[in-house]
Amino acid sequence: MPPAFVWDDNCLKLLDQRKLPGKEVYICCRNYVQVAEAVEKMIVRGAPIIGIAAAYGIVLGVLAIGREKPEELKARFDKIYQRLARTRPTARNLFWALERMKSVFNQNCGLGLNKLKKALLKEAREIAREDARVNRLIGQYGQRLFRNGWAVLTHCNTGALATAAYGTALGVIRTAAARGKKICVYATETRPVLQGARLTVWELARDKIPVVLITDNMAGWLMRRGEVQAVIVGADRIARNGDTANKIGTYSLAVLARENRIPFYVAAPFSTIDLSIKSGDEIPIEERSSQEVREIAGRLITLPDVPVRNPGFDITPSEYISAIITEKGLFRYPYEFV
Amino acid sequence: MPPAFVWDDNCLKLLDQRKLPGKEVYICCRNYVQVAEAVEKMIVRGAPIIGIAAAYGIVLGVLAIGREKPEELKARFDKIYQRLARTRPTARNLFWALERMKSVFNQNCGLGLNKLKKALLKEAREIAREDARVNRLIGQYGQRLFRNGWAVLTHCNTGALATAAYGTALGVIRTAAARGKKICVYATETRPVLQGARLTVWELARDKIPVVLITDNMAGWLMRRGEVQAVIVGADRIARNGDTANKIGTYSLAVLARENRIPFYVAAPFSTIDLSIKSGDEIPIEERSSQEVREIAGRLITLPDVPVRNPGFDITPSEYISAIITEKGLFRYPYEFV
Repeated sequence: MPPAFVWDDNCLKLLDQRKLPGKEVYICCRNYVQVAEAVEKMIVRGAPIIGIAAAYGIVLGVLAIGREKPEELKARFDKIYQRLARTRPTARNLFWALERMKSVFNQNCGLGLNKLKKALLKEAREIAREDARVNRLIGQYGQRLFRNGWAVLTHCNTGALATAAYGTALGVIRTAAARGKKICVYATETRPVLQGARLTVWELARDKIPVVLITDNMAGWLMRRGEVQAVIVGADRIARNGDTANKIGTYSLAVLARENRIPFYVAAPFSTIDLSIKSGDEIPIEERSSQEVREIAGRLITLPDVPVRNPGFDITPSEYISAIITEKGLFRYPYEFV
Repeated sequence: MPPAFVWDDNCLKLLDQRKLPGKEVYICCRNYVQVAEAVEKMIVRGAPIIGIAAAYGIVLGVLAIGREKPEELKARFDKIYQRLARTRPTARNLFWALERMKSVFNQNCGLGLNKLKKALLKEAREIAREDARVNRLIGQYGQRLFRNGWAVLTHCNTGALATAAYGTALGVIRTAAARGKKICVYATETRPVLQGARLTVWELARDKIPVVLITDNMAGWLMRRGEVQAVIVGADRIARNGDTANKIGTYSLAVLARENRIPFYVAAPFSTIDLSIKSGDEIPIEERSSQEVREIAGRLITLPDVPVRNPGFDITPSEYISAIITEKGLFRYPYEFV
């Protein structure tokens, strides 16, 4: 599979996920503003990878700095940090990665620009490498939950495109398949941006894992008919009590799973957990552009001026979640992350 | 509003609902096969209006008959009837209207072709007129359920385009608005065919009733946030116990409404109730073309060969339905239609 990002010669190349599966095109970010815009425009999306992209954004920002007084260096860094931090409000991993980069900056900003730049690049690479390792562990812990022959429903895209490699929820499915379990995946198309129809279908087809595409409103009915044995999704932010922000539609899937006695799993790196907040009530939900709802693939599907709601995420209360799968193992309700 | 159908000079003109809201184009059906194809292609859709279209289809079929022996006349009629009956399997109103036409045929087929043709045309017109009357009554009974200031969520299109006039669920909303209640409507886009985004938004905008468009997967979250005070939908077939077949996604909305203690209403003419079947298990669910899911507005959104599920309808068990609103009044669980 073509990698979702490549660090190459002081340039962050990003596979343009808006164009998939029709075209495989990379765009090249040579400065931090381009990275911020790529995250805003969803050229890359998915909580783990936007953390990684932001880390490389910091690197690109600091690489552009020439001689600077120490106070000015700090101000330059803060400007870069703030620009990257305000790209998308919901995903915890973005802020977590930026905080790691800030900490490396603080430790190294007195040691000269060269050392600082090297240390920041090393940290960004380490964040990406860690994410790939973490996903393998999530896959190993999670795959035990799936039995041979199951149909598993997933929402949005949580695969190699959303992470450094392998994926979170999709990584669990991949691991189960790699261990010889026959798993059939129902992928919801995931309106408005169609990450399921465009990205998850594409990833699974490349891996030759059986996938069936459905529209979002079909999921409940398939559960009711007994055609789904488990639901697994990723997460953008998890509160201390286990409440989980994830792609809009996740809450509905969780309610429908519980109503039909189907286990509902969340797979995410521990870095998605925001221990600073008590519950999902404190998670900011991004409201995105009306055009995403009024148009599909650039084509107007309704009246051009109809009012629209477009929350990018929703919050699933923790009591609906059968288990949260992290690299530290499985957590179950009532959630305590230690 | 342009009428959804016009009977004009031995031709059934149908507003092509596939092209709305972009274009208002009528297609002209001059024989019963064209009517059958229009129903199959969803040029018209919505349980009540496909019953009306089928009734006029019978008229067109019989109008084309010249001299015929009585036995042959019966065979010709049966052929017309069967062709129209096999267009779409789920909506009760289609079969109900065809049965009414058959009964008029049986009563009049011995009286000469001219009298027969007149009697059939009269019956088709009566079916349409009755539907318009019935919708007004449904609106009057239903509007009492809505309070001033409520936000009401609806799915698919149940308006003037789906009926002879006014609409069922949308007729209830229209009546409430006409009585001065301030109602804001959340319209789900209703993938795959987008009847909500294309048709419901268009109808409500013309009536100046406030409407907000959402994707199907947002409905649950808005309910959870307390932004929806009632859900109202139409029906394609209702079993004797109240189980209701309606556009795919309806079942999920009903579960989510109950979970959030929001009333969930079904509005339908009494002719939608199929007293011959005990429960929803006996209702046939149409599986439609894969292209509807793989494409949106003619544009491929996924891999061209990905397997797809596309049930056009689902069944909402009657225990999730707060009330069924018909022209005979409100029915409540446990349902007994007498």
